[in-house]
Amino acid sequence: MIASMSDKSPSQQLLTLLSDFGISDEYVAVIKGVIAQINPMLRVVDITHKIPPQNIAAARFCLMNAVPYFPVGTVHVAVVDPGVGGKRRAVAVELAQGFLVAPDNGLLSGVLSQNRAIAAVELTNSDYWRTSEPSSTFHGRDIFAPVGAHLASGVSLQQLGPEIDPETLVTLNLPECSQKNDMIIGCIQYIDHFGNLVTNIPENYVQGKNWSVEIKGNIIKALETYSDVKIGELIALVGSHGWVEIAVNSSNAQLELSVKLGELVEIS
Amino acid sequence: MIASMSDKSPSQQLLTLLSDFGISDEYVAVIKGVIAQINPMLRVVDITHKIPPQNIAAARFCLMNAVPYFPVGTVHVAVVDPGVGGKRRAVAVELAQGFLVAPDNGLLSGVLSQNRAIAAVELTNSDYWRTSEPSSTFHGRDIFAPVGAHLASGVSLQQLGPEIDPETLVTLNLPECSQKNDMIIGCIQYIDHFGNLVTNIPENYVQGKNWSVEIKGNIIKALETYSDVKIGELIALVGSHGWVEIAVNSSNAQLELSVKLGELVEIS
Amino acid sequence: MIASMSDKSPSQQLLTLLSDFGISDEYVAVIKGVIAQINPMLRVVDITHKIPPQNIAAARFCLMNAVPYFPVGTVHVAVVDPGVGGKRRAVAVELAQGFLVAPDNGLLSGVLSQNRAIAAVELTNSDYWRTSEPSSTFHGRDIFAPVGAHLASGVSLQQLGPEIDPETLVTLNLPECSQKNDMIIGCIQYIDHFGNLVTNIPENYVQGKNWSVEIKGNIIKALETYSDVKIGELIALVGSHGWVEIAVNSSNAQLELSVKLGELVEIS
Repeated sequence: MIASMSDKSPSQQLLTLLSDFGISDEYVAVIKGVIAQINPMLRVVDITHKIPPQNIAAARFCLMNAVPYFPVGTVHVAVVDPGVGGKRRAVAVELAQGFLVAPDNGLLSGVLSQNRAIAAVELTNSDYWRTSEPSSTFHGRDIFAPVGAHLASGVSLQQLGPEIDPETLVTLNLPECSQKNDMIIGCIQYIDHFGNLVTNIPENYVQGKNWSVEIKGNIIKALETYSDVKIGELIALVGSHGWVEIAVNSSNAQLELSVKLGELVEIS
Repeated sequence: MIASMSDKSPSQQLLTLLSDFGISDEYVAVIKGVIAQINPMLRVVDITHKIPPQNIAAARFCLMNAVPYFPVGTVHVAVVDPGVGGKRRAVAVELAQGFLVAPDNGLLSGVLSQNRAIAAVELTNSDYWRTSEPSSTFHGRDIFAPVGAHLASGVSLQQLGPEIDPETLVTLNLPECSQKNDMIIGCIQYIDHFGNLVTNIPENYVQGKNWSVEIKGNIIKALETYSDVKIGELIALVGSHGWVEIAVNSSNAQLELSVKLGELVEIS
Repeated sequence: MIASMSDKSPSQQLLTLLSDFGISDEYVAVIKGVIAQINPMLRVVDITHKIPPQNIAAARFCLMNAVPYFPVGTVHVAVVDPGVGGKRRAVAVELAQGFLVAPDNGLLSGVLSQNRAIAAVELTNSDYWRTSEPSSTFHGRDIFAPVGAHLASGVSLQQLGPEIDPETLVTLNLPECSQKNDMIIGCIQYIDHFGNLVTNIPENYVQGKNWSVEIKGNIIKALETYSDVKIGELIALVGSHGWVEIAVNSSNAQLELSVKLGELVEIS
């Protein structure tokens, strides 16, 4: 059941990193140094380190949208960890698609809503940590990154600690979208750096229909792509990530509409 | 005529990325995942992802200044694409120096002002896309990055689509610098993150001469390097990219002079 | 005495980059292109390029904290260089841990306070530069990166230029922390992107003791980890880098306390 790493050339093995460590300090480099000490042949790809500090919901969204595009067998190490040093568990999860290594605080619940967990373990075996006495504030360096590097180098999930029931992994409670007659009610779950407003309404709710979306009193018609409207005009569409999105052609919908995360939207 | 990739070890093959996708979201990682699925041995180097959104002129400038420093045969994938999903062409261009893959919106016109196009094609062969039904908003993921990865892996330019006349590639109309008697008139074409003001006046207009530059009423003498003036003082010089530049030693000329892109300068 | 590179597979050889070049412009990519032209098999890891412009103290702090985590033999190229083109020396230093390549302006003095210099040279041999006529404003591209790439590819330190006495390398004068009876007086030497305030008081001054720290009239008790206090509350602790640190659980201590670099702290 456990995917073997041994059928890949070691220099083809990928490990991704996602965190809120930013890129101004040396934290991410320290993690990459620790990984290189364990296995200098691993290829490391940054998903992003600019998750707003301690924002588990944003981390959950980015990880969920990135994982499907990576080769089978990729190890994803994700560290947004406001509970570091406290009682939350550190876990690793095996999917058909690859492996996840993270604190058990809801960060993985987006990926897990789209992928079945084959197995999960709690990271208690300090043989695969950087040190048996990890810092109480930087488990990214001392636990998550070294465990991810070992996993990507052929250590099995079961060596990392005792198996846990994947059903017990923490789920982040997001407002769900609901359908009532012809009306769908959802909310803005993510705002990207272009200012595009990503709702929590998935593609299949609107596929093949004529629809428009209402937000803060604006009714916006659905079209195919940004350039279907004039520069500066609002458009609703299904974004490349598969969610209903509100954008402005060549501009910033967040600034235009003064919208915050959680803002309600209605589709009819 | 077509440079062969086969004389290189696959792990030496470079692909660069330039975009306005930012580094806060997962977009760039998705592109790197797509590339790794096609060829996990490729080396990917980011030129920058912090081009101001939809700013084709800034993308053109950065790409033009980066390409000459990469090994022959490097594939450069550049995506600043306000017309995504609309009628603009997607193209690939072969140079003696390497390959360019981008939307045909002027982004390539800087590189092409310094390098002869050996051949160009329109990217219509969906065999080399991620999917034959690409998203209407993210051709970076679905067309440009996969085409670039295939090109860097040995697919020939001609397999990607029908040849087009390189003369038909879109050129960005920038204000040109002009010379009249002993006076050169130009403008600020780029401002870097140090606040250094880069003009559109090339090195050869001033080489071997005594000169000074006037901007917003300030007359600034040309010297060799930043530390030739005191800390906080203005200096004019030929920057490392080969253009006339205005800077402040250990400080920010943009803030000092409140200058915007396009601001006129005169050299005498 | 000189560590040999030849016992490593070339694709395992690491070179790190640290600078104040930012990631908006193409400068860092140009450096990576230059390195790839010299040796396309080198693995390049960014420490950070977001050092505040010309801030040697911040560069010194980040480099000092990153170097210990990289494999033995790693070459670290660090360029924060307000004196570029002036009279400061360009140097390379050999440690048991690896190699440093940088301007001699104090940037290396943090690493050198924790690692003995085995040898040092001044970078005068232009055979290992990109060009024998380097730009007067971009020695990162023309001297430091190419020298680092050659060093990581097996060129010996002694080939790069004449040996110099490591004792003559420039030291950055930071306020030192001092101890008087039971009182330790120090200051804030670095503020990270979470807003955590890092003092210049090392771990061994407080190890095994009960202590609290005073800053701007606030007395803050030392505990183990961020989550030992409620969300929004101040905590003092030894940070993962080994220095006494002041933080706020799930928030930003810099904003909370309006603290600047150099602010005094007292431990009792």
